[in-house]
Amino acid sequence: MKYPPSLVALIRELSRLPGIGPKSAQRLAFHLFEQPREDIERLSSALLEAKRDLHTCPICFNITDADVCDVCSDPSRDRTLICVVEEPGDVIAIERSGEYQGLYHVLHGVISPMNGVGPERLYIKPLLPRLSEAREVILATGTTVEGEATALYLQRLIEPLGVTVSRIAYGLPVGGALEYADEVTLGRALSGRQTIANRGPAK
Amino acid sequence: MKYPPSLVALIRELSRLPGIGPKSAQRLAFHLFEQPREDIERLSSALLEAKRDLHTCPICFNITDADVCDVCSDPSRDRTLICVVEEPGDVIAIERSGEYQGLYHVLHGVISPMNGVGPERLYIKPLLPRLSEAREVILATGTTVEGEATALYLQRLIEPLGVTVSRIAYGLPVGGALEYADEVTLGRALSGRQTIANRGPAK
Repeated sequence: MKYPPSLVALIRELSRLPGIGPKSAQRLAFHLFEQPREDIERLSSALLEAKRDLHTCPICFNITDADVCDVCSDPSRDRTLICVVEEPGDVIAIERSGEYQGLYHVLHGVISPMNGVGPERLYIKPLLPRLSEAREVILATGTTVEGEATALYLQRLIEPLGVTVSRIAYGLPVGGALEYADEVTLGRALSGRQTIANRGPAK
Repeated sequence: MKYPPSLVALIRELSRLPGIGPKSAQRLAFHLFEQPREDIERLSSALLEAKRDLHTCPICFNITDADVCDVCSDPSRDRTLICVVEEPGDVIAIERSGEYQGLYHVLHGVISPMNGVGPERLYIKPLLPRLSEAREVILATGTTVEGEATALYLQRLIEPLGVTVSRIAYGLPVGGALEYADEVTLGRALSGRQTIANRGPAK
């Protein structure tokens, strides 16, 4: 007795998702089999529509369905502040803290030589032209080894350009991913940030 | 700043999957966003095709893409033996053990009063007409509380009909779900099964 081919295909596709092994994929497939057709169609359409509608903002590389994302197109935001984060989920996490009124820049990853990810694989290059308008760049990558290395790399890159570079304060539990921090901790970490280089013009 | 609606929809649909909370759904959605369009289309089609092609076998209620499943339509299987399991995944697990040559009957669940699942919610009724051909029914529900309760319920239902009822042997670690047992343990458990009622005609 063998699995029908369409079940095998579904299990294979599901097991490609991060954190879902072959056993979980099998469980998920059987669960999906038991669901009404409408639910499956809704999930399937949600996947296609998300892929169709969503893209990265051409300025900050956050996920958006508009030409330019909500933050970049908001005239009330402080355009002289740029907060650099690893992933789009980090933007949401910081927005939820309510402590930040500047712009963002999403790297879509961290420098990680172990995984073969160098600076050229991240959206670091498009950050440079944005710095002409900036008074301060806040490095809000995670406090993991990779997040720290990425922050150090960016600090060394941006410092010589005469822009104030700051690092999000260690109110975060060290070693944790930014996305999982609670709003209060994230807010404190933002307001308690420390200047690590200030060679720009006096404020 | 808010999530775009199609991202919200995708996260909502993903978080309906079992074992995937809102945080995991968000991570999955961001992961999917980074994948090439072809991968998303393949996953989406796999979902729709599985739903279109697959249904339960009208005899044993295993998952199949044929009119009648591979096991029920195989003339070499012993049609006087019926092994009752909770889920379609259990059929695959038992087939992998290579110890069993009879037929199956998939309940699609267990009796669980805590979750409001009574016997009428399972495929128990269609098992009864199949018993006229059967010499022995093997109860291979899990050794969880619900699995045991379901086995007891079926034993009391089938015993008066003069069919031998046996329970899969406790070679399984007690308290575990059948699906996760290894092949050898499952094979031993099947071959070491104990008769719990034999009021039928002598073999």
